[in-house]
Amino acid sequence: MSDFTHFDAEGKAVMVDVGGKAETERRATAKGEVVMQPETLEMIRSGGVKKGDVLSVARLAGIMGAKRTPDLIPLCHPLALTSVKVDLRLLPERNAVEVEATCKLNGRTGVEMEALTAVSVAALTVYDMCKAVDRGMRIEAVRLTHKSGGKSGSYEAE
Amino acid sequence: MSDFTHFDAEGKAVMVDVGGKAETERRATAKGEVVMQPETLEMIRSGGVKKGDVLSVARLAGIMGAKRTPDLIPLCHPLALTSVKVDLRLLPERNAVEVEATCKLNGRTGVEMEALTAVSVAALTVYDMCKAVDRGMRIEAVRLTHKSGGKSGSYEAE
Amino acid sequence: MSDFTHFDAEGKAVMVDVGGKAETERRATAKGEVVMQPETLEMIRSGGVKKGDVLSVARLAGIMGAKRTPDLIPLCHPLALTSVKVDLRLLPERNAVEVEATCKLNGRTGVEMEALTAVSVAALTVYDMCKAVDRGMRIEAVRLTHKSGGKSGSYEAE
Amino acid sequence: MSDFTHFDAEGKAVMVDVGGKAETERRATAKGEVVMQPETLEMIRSGGVKKGDVLSVARLAGIMGAKRTPDLIPLCHPLALTSVKVDLRLLPERNAVEVEATCKLNGRTGVEMEALTAVSVAALTVYDMCKAVDRGMRIEAVRLTHKSGGKSGSYEAE
Amino acid sequence: MSDFTHFDAEGKAVMVDVGGKAETERRATAKGEVVMQPETLEMIRSGGVKKGDVLSVARLAGIMGAKRTPDLIPLCHPLALTSVKVDLRLLPERNAVEVEATCKLNGRTGVEMEALTAVSVAALTVYDMCKAVDRGMRIEAVRLTHKSGGKSGSYEAE
Amino acid sequence: MSDFTHFDAEGKAVMVDVGGKAETERRATAKGEVVMQPETLEMIRSGGVKKGDVLSVARLAGIMGAKRTPDLIPLCHPLALTSVKVDLRLLPERNAVEVEATCKLNGRTGVEMEALTAVSVAALTVYDMCKAVDRGMRIEAVRLTHKSGGKSGSYEAE
Repeated sequence: MSDFTHFDAEGKAVMVDVGGKAETERRATAKGEVVMQPETLEMIRSGGVKKGDVLSVARLAGIMGAKRTPDLIPLCHPLALTSVKVDLRLLPERNAVEVEATCKLNGRTGVEMEALTAVSVAALTVYDMCKAVDRGMRIEAVRLTHKSGGKSGSYEAE
Repeated sequence: MSDFTHFDAEGKAVMVDVGGKAETERRATAKGEVVMQPETLEMIRSGGVKKGDVLSVARLAGIMGAKRTPDLIPLCHPLALTSVKVDLRLLPERNAVEVEATCKLNGRTGVEMEALTAVSVAALTVYDMCKAVDRGMRIEAVRLTHKSGGKSGSYEAE
Repeated sequence: MSDFTHFDAEGKAVMVDVGGKAETERRATAKGEVVMQPETLEMIRSGGVKKGDVLSVARLAGIMGAKRTPDLIPLCHPLALTSVKVDLRLLPERNAVEVEATCKLNGRTGVEMEALTAVSVAALTVYDMCKAVDRGMRIEAVRLTHKSGGKSGSYEAE
Repeated sequence: MSDFTHFDAEGKAVMVDVGGKAETERRATAKGEVVMQPETLEMIRSGGVKKGDVLSVARLAGIMGAKRTPDLIPLCHPLALTSVKVDLRLLPERNAVEVEATCKLNGRTGVEMEALTAVSVAALTVYDMCKAVDRGMRIEAVRLTHKSGGKSGSYEAE
Repeated sequence: MSDFTHFDAEGKAVMVDVGGKAETERRATAKGEVVMQPETLEMIRSGGVKKGDVLSVARLAGIMGAKRTPDLIPLCHPLALTSVKVDLRLLPERNAVEVEATCKLNGRTGVEMEALTAVSVAALTVYDMCKAVDRGMRIEAVRLTHKSGGKSGSYEAE
Repeated sequence: MSDFTHFDAEGKAVMVDVGGKAETERRATAKGEVVMQPETLEMIRSGGVKKGDVLSVARLAGIMGAKRTPDLIPLCHPLALTSVKVDLRLLPERNAVEVEATCKLNGRTGVEMEALTAVSVAALTVYDMCKAVDRGMRIEAVRLTHKSGGKSGSYEAE
């Protein structure tokens, strides 16, 4: 199991030692979708003056969720993120709300998990706020779309 | 926006008042999948003595994640969960790890968000532990599959 | 110091034993104000489409803050709040944003601290979001305005 | 709304990107007061051997509260504070307990919110510990009194 | 492994389902000691006016630590504790500070872990506050001394 | 009380100012034991396929516990740990499970408390998982065994 960095030679879970890594600018972007009934999407869209409230509550939850990553993911390092940005967009052609999160750090380890956690928490919050009208919503395609900084180089998925 | 219970008549976000609801046994089950390269799945499966470590770390993270739900989802009530169970299974025919979580409560509000959060955190942990070998993994189909207890009756999705 | 319930007979800090108290509906309302430059208030008010964002971010922060009360206030009991409501209003005649929070519980102890914490966290969030344009803002008059339920009876301040 | 740094060009809440800022010594001091009945202040003052317990509990709560700032204030960065100091003083001529907090950081963003949060949590703790004898206490004048470090220069309020 | 209640029939970690247990008054007391150099104990004892500060900081930390138990111990249930009491005593004849914590709950599961966590966190805080003068301190004999309530009956260790 | 660094000249608790200290590699190792009935140790040892589950749950809890140190120990600084490693070993000749934790940081303050907290939380988790079969377990000899980095030099206890 030596290729899984979160296990030592005996297969025991460890928080990887990043003390020897260079402090560089790390950046990661993740995306995901909440797929729902067309009527649910329309309710979010047509909120009138109140428009955007579902999206703005979810955006905040995603930003705060990124900060909780080391509390949630057992082997993640505590990090002093320098930036978190979460965006939600309506995709009517796919009956979905798309979530995108970008995190940055000047540090010794990547911020993929922070971006993915932000997306997940924002998506869960969309579910929470709309579940009274649509229990069948699904969170789909939570994935890393971009990563840069660090020894392993950049990653660009789409 | 009156059908979204998390907004009041003026469209402001609120934590719904559940004080008047009856204390009943509430139960919710959620599922999701982490889809990956066949080689990644094989690495998880063939860990030998160490087999199961990815899954057991993720299971624990999911259980602990369920308890953090009110810290993460802005309008969720703090709850004294009576049970959390998280299961992970390899689905080789779909190149996926399936996550299933069931939460229970004797209380005044449903526990769907706790089950969905447990699934999401467990899935994120699988991603974290395998990301060094497979950055293209995707978390898919996070959804509520069962719900019972409370005035709105039972829900059975599959 | 026998009249301070948070100290025992020897003057040591304790979390008061509420096990013998009756489970009743407890409710508390607190208020406070963030006093600022007229220009700052006008900026919040005139946000156009974006209007309300400062207030809606602060409202969410207040709701989430109420849930963190037992983590923050050393001798507060952990509570399963049944309702949290936070409202923010512009008071142009006083160059202030007013914050009001109401918390409810079916339980054995009052929820004054939860309401006061919600007001304080919402007010701090207003400060945070506007501090780039007005460092001289002040949080004033954070106080309990209403309390009911429990042996000590109701309290009505204004 | 471009002058509010916590919103992007479209008015969406963001955690400001501080990655490009220089690491300098940042320092902030905040103050506030808990105004109460003269009898309540006297009870705090005359605690005899036990003197100071209300103040020392509140001091600790303030220090710990400063560390929780990024969990409470949605758009605050997680920071590795290098120093937190919280002081409480009796002001008999104003029937008040004064709270003063100073935070320091070698970092990329200011620590005003940490100092203000420390003051607020300490003040709320004074309220909690004395509320059995005086429900009418008020938290007043929570404000930034000093700030230094960073591009925007120093600020001195009093 | 069927006798370990935290594993299911397949040996997977679970949070035990306590939904079917009766709500009764549960109580647990735990003790522990911090053993140190005589000079260190004397410094704690002879603090003059400041006497008791090490002990009172540790007492508060223990009380707050009890509330964090479900965040720390993976399979512990979140509980609404009704009482937490932490006491520290100097034991000069054994060059030790003794810590004792009692927790109570009206609920469906025991509070042993809350009492043991309170003792451990208080003991760690004593270590933290004195470590500049005595790095060789040891935390010893952290144990359950009393437990009552619940189906399994009472336990009395000393 | 001037030798206790966590008090200022007036005996008030402070979080020590480490802003002037150099950023160096800090490392600390701590150990402790959970002493139990021989039968309990044998149950942990002979778990068959499931072998190691008690130990692996406790290991994870210890790693996550290290990250919560600044939330638990009032005067500890928030730190961006670069590595956490927790090991558990069966010591049949002493009827004990031994816990060892090593933490690292590139920073301005030592990580003794993080290592000691990791040991304590892992030991508490062992207790939690085995308490149904052995309530008389004791956590013993939690101590610092190694420390390096920083002005005060290295420390080696065994």
